[in-house]
Amino acid sequence: MSEIAKTPPTPYYAVIFCSVRTAGDDGYDELAARMSELSAEQDGFLGMEHARSEGLGITICYWKSLEAIAEWRENAEHKFAQQKGYETFYQAFATRICKVERDNFFERQDS
Amino acid sequence: MSEIAKTPPTPYYAVIFCSVRTAGDDGYDELAARMSELSAEQDGFLGMEHARSEGLGITICYWKSLEAIAEWRENAEHKFAQQKGYETFYQAFATRICKVERDNFFERQDS
Repeated sequence: MSEIAKTPPTPYYAVIFCSVRTAGDDGYDELAARMSELSAEQDGFLGMEHARSEGLGITICYWKSLEAIAEWRENAEHKFAQQKGYETFYQAFATRICKVERDNFFERQDS
Repeated sequence: MSEIAKTPPTPYYAVIFCSVRTAGDDGYDELAARMSELSAEQDGFLGMEHARSEGLGITICYWKSLEAIAEWRENAEHKFAQQKGYETFYQAFATRICKVERDNFFERQDS
């Protein structure tokens, strides 16, 4: 999870999910790990990046197309997790569907 | 910094900056704080979200237009910081320029 995603040439799509958790676990870690695993098995999944600090979590999922995003949104296990998100896990969140138009990668060569 | 950005109705733009730091500070924290402050003063700046964990940092800046992003990229102080990024601060990074086509916000009412 904790790596820069190796995405293909643009254009492709990104879903930016930014969240503030409620207190307590309530099964969150287990369900988040399962969603991470399950999303990676979906058609059109291109990669994921995740970080959380000072109460703010950011997860970015990259996808081949809007159709792939729509299919993942309708996945039954994912719908259950989304419902838990509304009911239990999150104090607040924002989901943003984006078209990635350009990108630029850098990797240090001297190490 | 550590909040969900309150962005206007779509469409708008996002710059996703995902990075892995080198060891040591080398003035990073100070320069990052300055860039955060300076970017927020630019025309067309809409908000910022940031998180870092397990070595991966994600900063998302929201902008009104591609022109606003281009102007910020060419800002002299920012160009200096970018150069320090290549030379010193980052082991690796990815920058992605995105058009935000749809978004969805949730905030818990029971607290």
